[in-house]
Amino acid sequence: MNRAAGLTALCFVLATPAARADEGMWTYNNFPKAEMQKRHGFAPDDKWLDHVRLSSVRLAGGCSGSIVSESGLLMTNHHCAHKCIEQLSTAEKDIIKGGFYARTAADEAKCPEVEINQLVEISDVTERIGKATRGLADQAYNAMVKAEMSRIEKECSSSDRVRCDVVTLYHGGIYNLYKYKRYQDVRLVFAPEFAIAFFGGDPDNFNFPRYDLDVSFLRLYEDGKPARMEHYLKWAQTGLKEGDLAFVSGHPGGTERQLTIAQLEYQRDVAMPDRLLRMAETRGVLTEFQRRSPEAKRISTDDLFAVENGFKVMRGRFEALHERSFFAGKVAGEKALRTTVAKDPKMKKLYAGAWDAIARAQDEAKKIRKPLSYIEGGIGFGGDLFRIARTLVRAGDELPKPLEKRFREFSDSRLPAVKQHLFSAAPIYEELEILKLTFGLGKLREQLGADDPFVKRVLGKESPDDLAARLVRGSKLKDLALRKRLWDGGKAAVDASDDPMILLAKQIDPDARAVRKKYEDEIEAVVKKNDELIAKARFAAQGTSAYPDATFTLRLSYGVVKGWEENGKPVKPITDLGGAFERATGRPPFELPETWLKARPRLDLATSFDLVTTNDIIGGNSGSPLVNRAGEAAGLVFDGNIHSLGGNFGYDPAQNRCVAVHSDALLHSLEKIYNADRIVKELRPPPPAAK
Amino acid sequence: MNRAAGLTALCFVLATPAARADEGMWTYNNFPKAEMQKRHGFAPDDKWLDHVRLSSVRLAGGCSGSIVSESGLLMTNHHCAHKCIEQLSTAEKDIIKGGFYARTAADEAKCPEVEINQLVEISDVTERIGKATRGLADQAYNAMVKAEMSRIEKECSSSDRVRCDVVTLYHGGIYNLYKYKRYQDVRLVFAPEFAIAFFGGDPDNFNFPRYDLDVSFLRLYEDGKPARMEHYLKWAQTGLKEGDLAFVSGHPGGTERQLTIAQLEYQRDVAMPDRLLRMAETRGVLTEFQRRSPEAKRISTDDLFAVENGFKVMRGRFEALHERSFFAGKVAGEKALRTTVAKDPKMKKLYAGAWDAIARAQDEAKKIRKPLSYIEGGIGFGGDLFRIARTLVRAGDELPKPLEKRFREFSDSRLPAVKQHLFSAAPIYEELEILKLTFGLGKLREQLGADDPFVKRVLGKESPDDLAARLVRGSKLKDLALRKRLWDGGKAAVDASDDPMILLAKQIDPDARAVRKKYEDEIEAVVKKNDELIAKARFAAQGTSAYPDATFTLRLSYGVVKGWEENGKPVKPITDLGGAFERATGRPPFELPETWLKARPRLDLATSFDLVTTNDIIGGNSGSPLVNRAGEAAGLVFDGNIHSLGGNFGYDPAQNRCVAVHSDALLHSLEKIYNADRIVKELRPPPPAAK
Repeated sequence: MNRAAGLTALCFVLATPAARADEGMWTYNNFPKAEMQKRHGFAPDDKWLDHVRLSSVRLAGGCSGSIVSESGLLMTNHHCAHKCIEQLSTAEKDIIKGGFYARTAADEAKCPEVEINQLVEISDVTERIGKATRGLADQAYNAMVKAEMSRIEKECSSSDRVRCDVVTLYHGGIYNLYKYKRYQDVRLVFAPEFAIAFFGGDPDNFNFPRYDLDVSFLRLYEDGKPARMEHYLKWAQTGLKEGDLAFVSGHPGGTERQLTIAQLEYQRDVAMPDRLLRMAETRGVLTEFQRRSPEAKRISTDDLFAVENGFKVMRGRFEALHERSFFAGKVAGEKALRTTVAKDPKMKKLYAGAWDAIARAQDEAKKIRKPLSYIEGGIGFGGDLFRIARTLVRAGDELPKPLEKRFREFSDSRLPAVKQHLFSAAPIYEELEILKLTFGLGKLREQLGADDPFVKRVLGKESPDDLAARLVRGSKLKDLALRKRLWDGGKAAVDASDDPMILLAKQIDPDARAVRKKYEDEIEAVVKKNDELIAKARFAAQGTSAYPDATFTLRLSYGVVKGWEENGKPVKPITDLGGAFERATGRPPFELPETWLKARPRLDLATSFDLVTTNDIIGGNSGSPLVNRAGEAAGLVFDGNIHSLGGNFGYDPAQNRCVAVHSDALLHSLEKIYNADRIVKELRPPPPAAK
Repeated sequence: MNRAAGLTALCFVLATPAARADEGMWTYNNFPKAEMQKRHGFAPDDKWLDHVRLSSVRLAGGCSGSIVSESGLLMTNHHCAHKCIEQLSTAEKDIIKGGFYARTAADEAKCPEVEINQLVEISDVTERIGKATRGLADQAYNAMVKAEMSRIEKECSSSDRVRCDVVTLYHGGIYNLYKYKRYQDVRLVFAPEFAIAFFGGDPDNFNFPRYDLDVSFLRLYEDGKPARMEHYLKWAQTGLKEGDLAFVSGHPGGTERQLTIAQLEYQRDVAMPDRLLRMAETRGVLTEFQRRSPEAKRISTDDLFAVENGFKVMRGRFEALHERSFFAGKVAGEKALRTTVAKDPKMKKLYAGAWDAIARAQDEAKKIRKPLSYIEGGIGFGGDLFRIARTLVRAGDELPKPLEKRFREFSDSRLPAVKQHLFSAAPIYEELEILKLTFGLGKLREQLGADDPFVKRVLGKESPDDLAARLVRGSKLKDLALRKRLWDGGKAAVDASDDPMILLAKQIDPDARAVRKKYEDEIEAVVKKNDELIAKARFAAQGTSAYPDATFTLRLSYGVVKGWEENGKPVKPITDLGGAFERATGRPPFELPETWLKARPRLDLATSFDLVTTNDIIGGNSGSPLVNRAGEAAGLVFDGNIHSLGGNFGYDPAQNRCVAVHSDALLHSLEKIYNADRIVKELRPPPPAAK
């Protein structure tokens, strides 16, 4: 993260929009058309926006995608569908390694846990939330916000096919109701080999130049048939070139550009080191676990990818917060806003205390962070079986309650997702489950201490290894029918169960609930209330020309195809297929698949492969389409460069870059390497003359 | 680390000695007798000091010990001899697990790599170094200091049995020549089972109450016979009780209490996160490696212990530097000294620039830290075989040079230690070597980047796994005779070798040397010179009432047996044998050995087991005797409590505690559990009447 980033952070508070370069993850209902027109001589009209919005989808598990045919063909990254691909693999047929192509419609294979959301409507509910919470103090305020959100969502959601989320924008400055069409029957159509989807592996991750075909195609189904889509992105007629305008329409997962200094310090000094160290150790365990056997490797590849990817992201953020000028910019930004507030008696009375209140909440957070994350957060209890057991135990307790008293994750509008995961047919591997639970229990003991009463109660006289093995081997929760019985039977059935994992989840629940309550009442409530005050102060000082922090909801960003300078040398913005062959060593992670080596003579090696743009994106944007002026699919976002990792806290126009697969490489490889004619025809139907 | 620590750090600069509580790792030639007399109504006389000094020894590998019989019996920790114990173990006879007791003198087993140093003389060479370096600037100064040190050491060291080290005290304020008697024939006499030596394992490490019998007995040999010792500690007639005075005579490895704020920030924000993350990942790899097989576990136990122990130490230090009041105390301390300097025109001229010069050197350090640690530091090339190869390659280049031009580690006075390690008969395990080298190469690529020219040259088209396996399997350096031939044959022999590990060491040496030179000239030289200036400023402001930072040389600290308060509750200072049986769960790491379970009826469970004292110690002090007023062995230091970990940067009298095994538990277990009559008789000879 270079100096410009610090300046940007400062500018965010002080500067006019024009100084902001291409920064911004804009909501569709507040897209800065005028500003973009001024900067780029082009801006999308409402029809364009509606069309692209309705062609954009969210993978509820944490990614983005786009609809690219009227028959519900969905394009996203390989790494976004990696879990599905792994779940559909077996020891005999490893489609992570070998790739997948459904030659006929009948071959399309259902993903056990994918849910797709298409945003059909946005409405404002700020006033309603405001009315419900008027005059309430921290805890009551926090509880009422949640209750009112659950009520609004329930009223909106007419069936399981509609998902309604109240979205908190500008840290509570605005509440919007997002209404989605929900698809849970999603099938795998195509995936290339992992070796080319993630060519360069962890060493190349977040780097550029890059040579990854990080794509997969899924298909939405309704009533057992391919869904008919009114809106979808046509394939780009011509590929993007350096300097071309590009949009990214997707779901940035979260940014923290509005955090106070106290919150940033908490992140930098407490939360991040903790997470990084745990991830580093997990990485070591999984790396060595993979050496147990080819099967161990196969079943843990997605986990290892997730931890390595997450580690690199977190490390980048950690380093950004240690970049002196960047942090100084943040400090100056907060100081400027606080000074503005302090100078105006009315604002002072309303807002001046908010920063210190949040700082005090951070000090409280330090005190309970370990039980909060290890017990309630479940870090001490790794693996799918515990997650399933806890869902069943909690569903038994929560579902009988009135909506507004339930945990938010059990609100009516969330139940379809809960059930999809609970009743997923995805395989559960004992060996890996034991590994994860052992690790979690070991960390639990390490972090809370061997003499902690909770730890003693959980472990008894057993070691983490022993306990994990006993629970995993003894649990019958792999059995889907049993899960259904326990879900349908509710609390009585769960209470009657002697499944050891259910017993564990029940045993620890009082402690988990207690620390969650403490967190919600004494930290979350204070932060939420005061966050909103700061947001209002910011609105008062700046108006609504800013974009809100990312919230894993649909956003549109604009930018151009453009390289950057690295150590004084220019990095070109587009690579070509030939570069992949040059970079290949024949050994993982620089090993090209057989299909590529064989197809080489047929390939146009000058075909554009990967590219970078100035679009402001972040994790969650993976799988977003790169859209050209014409509103066509011109690429597939899969990464940011290393400088984009600090983007969580601020955008640096000089170096922050979005990384995507070029539409030319996608089409060329489908045609020449994979002979995926069905998909090619769908993406680019033959011209009318040929029909 | 609590608030008091911050106050202490502040007091260090501002306060009178009396305010310092029992803080201090004092050199034997500057022990604060008057101050101690005032505080405790007792102070040792010169005879006492000489006797305890000559009864104290250093384990050159990084620990302390004491002579406890006139036949050269040496007491140290199990974890200090762990490597030797592991090296003497085999798959058939695992004495880590089962313990060791030489029933007869003939059974005493030689440790392959232990060197013992007994400090026989200290003399001051400050003036000589000062003369040699007068008027020299950074680089020339740095080179001359090293050259003059090597010359002084060579003149002092008459044979391999004498080791002479010039020791830099007060960051260059004082140079002392330490003359040691050197023992390289050291044999294992007794070690308990690992399960009781390290009862509670990593979870209990650095915690208290504690129940560890972390002891081993070695014996010094001369000319093939037990060494006759003029000085040794007699066994305590009565055991220590709460409130009793206690001395620790040992070799604290290093403290950083005098670092500037710029250096502390570099440690906190750059160096420590790096090391911690690497250690966390290594820990994960080793933990899972241990699950490969019982043999894998056996051969990697010492490595896992080292990494877990080091991790906990580093984490404690990291957290200490993040404790706000502690760091604020450091900042205030530096500010106070700088203000004093700035106010005095003469001091200002001499010293005022030193802090900024050191800060600039830290910025330079950031730039080269990765190649410095991964290439020259060898982190990218883990394992014994590479270490051996590099020693041979460098010996070939360095030994023909005149003394003052050589790397310091090849100065004449260091050669006996170099040879001992190079020609060690300790086993080298291929599986573990491959693991370590793979990990190192992977990290090398990750840290320097896959496109770094050095990385590309080292890896070529191979993956880290492939390259590591090829080098380890192909190297013949496990063969001691080959090592001897290459050492004796010098550069010509090394150049003629086609051993793949030798070839690697040769290949990378130019890069390693280049970055080392850059470090020595542009960072080390600047820091050393300006460190000395700050030390002089501190002397000028405070006189010589302070103790120097620890330097792995013999120090004496005083304190009392005393508990502390933890979360408002008192922690009692002494545990008893009964507590171990209560804490045992029957599963590692809380599993008592069979010998203990069987001996239980014979034991006096009220016997004092472990205890804490206020002595100011740090890593390197492990194995130090706890000495009573009478100059007798009253215990065996093996740990500090969790609050002592910040002790690297400052001593906190309220909570910083030294952890030791009580002399009563040592004797009682030798008698009743291990029936180690030979040792018992040596430690406490029968009264004359019974002879």
